[in-house]
Amino acid sequence: MSKVQLIGAWFSPFLKRVEITLKMKGVEYEYIEVDLINKPPLILHHNPVHQKVPILIHDGKTIVESAVILEYIDEVWKGPNILPKDPYQRARARFWADFIDQKCVPATRKALWCRGEVQVNAIREAREALKILECEVKDKKFFGGDQIDYVDIIGSFLAYWMRIFDEVVGLHLFTQDELPSLCKWADELCDNKYIKEHLPDKERLADRVRGHAKTTRSV
Amino acid sequence: MSKVQLIGAWFSPFLKRVEITLKMKGVEYEYIEVDLINKPPLILHHNPVHQKVPILIHDGKTIVESAVILEYIDEVWKGPNILPKDPYQRARARFWADFIDQKCVPATRKALWCRGEVQVNAIREAREALKILECEVKDKKFFGGDQIDYVDIIGSFLAYWMRIFDEVVGLHLFTQDELPSLCKWADELCDNKYIKEHLPDKERLADRVRGHAKTTRSV
Repeated sequence: MSKVQLIGAWFSPFLKRVEITLKMKGVEYEYIEVDLINKPPLILHHNPVHQKVPILIHDGKTIVESAVILEYIDEVWKGPNILPKDPYQRARARFWADFIDQKCVPATRKALWCRGEVQVNAIREAREALKILECEVKDKKFFGGDQIDYVDIIGSFLAYWMRIFDEVVGLHLFTQDELPSLCKWADELCDNKYIKEHLPDKERLADRVRGHAKTTRSV
Repeated sequence: MSKVQLIGAWFSPFLKRVEITLKMKGVEYEYIEVDLINKPPLILHHNPVHQKVPILIHDGKTIVESAVILEYIDEVWKGPNILPKDPYQRARARFWADFIDQKCVPATRKALWCRGEVQVNAIREAREALKILECEVKDKKFFGGDQIDYVDIIGSFLAYWMRIFDEVVGLHLFTQDELPSLCKWADELCDNKYIKEHLPDKERLADRVRGHAKTTRSV
């Protein structure tokens, strides 16, 4: 049996993507929690380039970057497909996952944690990006159709973390009035059996964010 | 026979990634040049989210974003593998391609076209990122080993475009002294049969950059 270890931090939405995917595939693993403030040598050893989590170690081989890890898990282990089988649908899934990671996540983070002109621009960018996702998920249960797939797992940051951050900071980016389909998708996603057991406790996460909001004024 | 169309602009390094990959796979296609200053409705129609090129249209299906297009081509057409077959090596290739696109390309672009504090920070980031690539390609002919692969194709921006821009702007980011292995790789890559026929004319590209450098002070 292969040895699978996963290094992460409890609050990380990027870690949770990997945990959700391993769970969907039925892969057993050893979880190693690390402190991201006082980073242990383990992180530098396995991820010298980015020095971030999650880090997956499979039979001694290290894989980093959550989107890359998800594709690796999908290729190595049997079980439900994470990416669609059809090349065109796979391309679409990669496009939307990339859109979430390169547009929505940076813009919403800046909108939440920056101030001044940077924040004003980021709020506009975040609203535009979320509106695009709203159109894409309209009339669908999940981005993957009736079942969650790669895009939904990548998007779990928006569905759970970002909505909590938005509530704590009071930005009101993610509202029922402006994004009804995205809100419906987020509710369905957070209620999914694979997703909900991996979501960190809402109050603990909100407390962490309140501390972060007091000290952080830039990203 | 399937119908393949590719929409692009002659100077785009992202277009060239797709042309190189189609060539390697032996895929015939119709090329459609567009003006990116006065964007035609064709771009908005096929790529409403990013409104960029390249755009691949395969039997009526549209695929955008060069890294996504490369994976699509590799999955659909036979011929030499663009990504390695082994899942771990594929994950490594995706990691380095993402590193080039998310770290090296934005930092070198800002270093070249911005001014003031933004430029100073971008130059430091670009040097650090290129140094990491220098270590990775040391003692290798290509990132893909003896043959070019996905990472080399993604990296062609650095090997050709960025070196020309660097020369024109006079930043000296990409020098033999600082990056000997990366310079050797870049020379080998630009001399590769699949790559060299798709590189735009150096003088024409340099002229375009000189015009760009005069008018642009931000990205």
